[in-house]
Amino acid sequence: MLYTGGAFVSKNLDFVLLLDCYGELLTQKQKEIADMYYNEDFSLSEIAEMKQITRQAVLDSLRHSEHFLMQIEQKLSVSEKMMKMRNCLEQILQCNETEQMHQLAKNGLRLL
Amino acid sequence: MLYTGGAFVSKNLDFVLLLDCYGELLTQKQKEIADMYYNEDFSLSEIAEMKQITRQAVLDSLRHSEHFLMQIEQKLSVSEKMMKMRNCLEQILQCNETEQMHQLAKNGLRLL
Repeated sequence: MLYTGGAFVSKNLDFVLLLDCYGELLTQKQKEIADMYYNEDFSLSEIAEMKQITRQAVLDSLRHSEHFLMQIEQKLSVSEKMMKMRNCLEQILQCNETEQMHQLAKNGLRLL
Repeated sequence: MLYTGGAFVSKNLDFVLLLDCYGELLTQKQKEIADMYYNEDFSLSEIAEMKQITRQAVLDSLRHSEHFLMQIEQKLSVSEKMMKMRNCLEQILQCNETEQMHQLAKNGLRLL
């Protein structure tokens, strides 16, 4: 979490995953601002300058996007499922015993 | 597709998958009506009677839900990815050759 003058905007991996998963549900402007902050690592002030809006407006947009995407994840859990699926497939990749690999694939199917 | 007096409401497997994937984004009432129609196979008139609304209101709700969920799928493609992932895992289950299974798992990872 990053303390930004009275408001918290998290800059953690979880939110990057949510943005990757549900970013298309944001407006074009919200998505651009979130991408610049979470993926391209620009500061709030840098984004404000580039977008010709106030630093507070950038912060408000990020907080709104974060809240919105977290609400979606609470309802759909797609990001969580994808993470578990990635883990499952990586285990299959590291495995050389067909019976165990079949069991891992069955575990994966239960996630869907 | 089912012809229902001037309006089309599809009752196909694809929409059942979308409902399963994104149903939680509908309102409680929209979700109940869609479940009754697509999963429990009640008719429009039966749902109208049970919900004490008009048959037209049931139809409007279904058309709205269908349009909404299709828009979400167009943006996120989660349902399509899940279907491809299911196919990938089922292929792993039917396979007994570790190298081929590893290749399938790599294909699965590319979907995430």
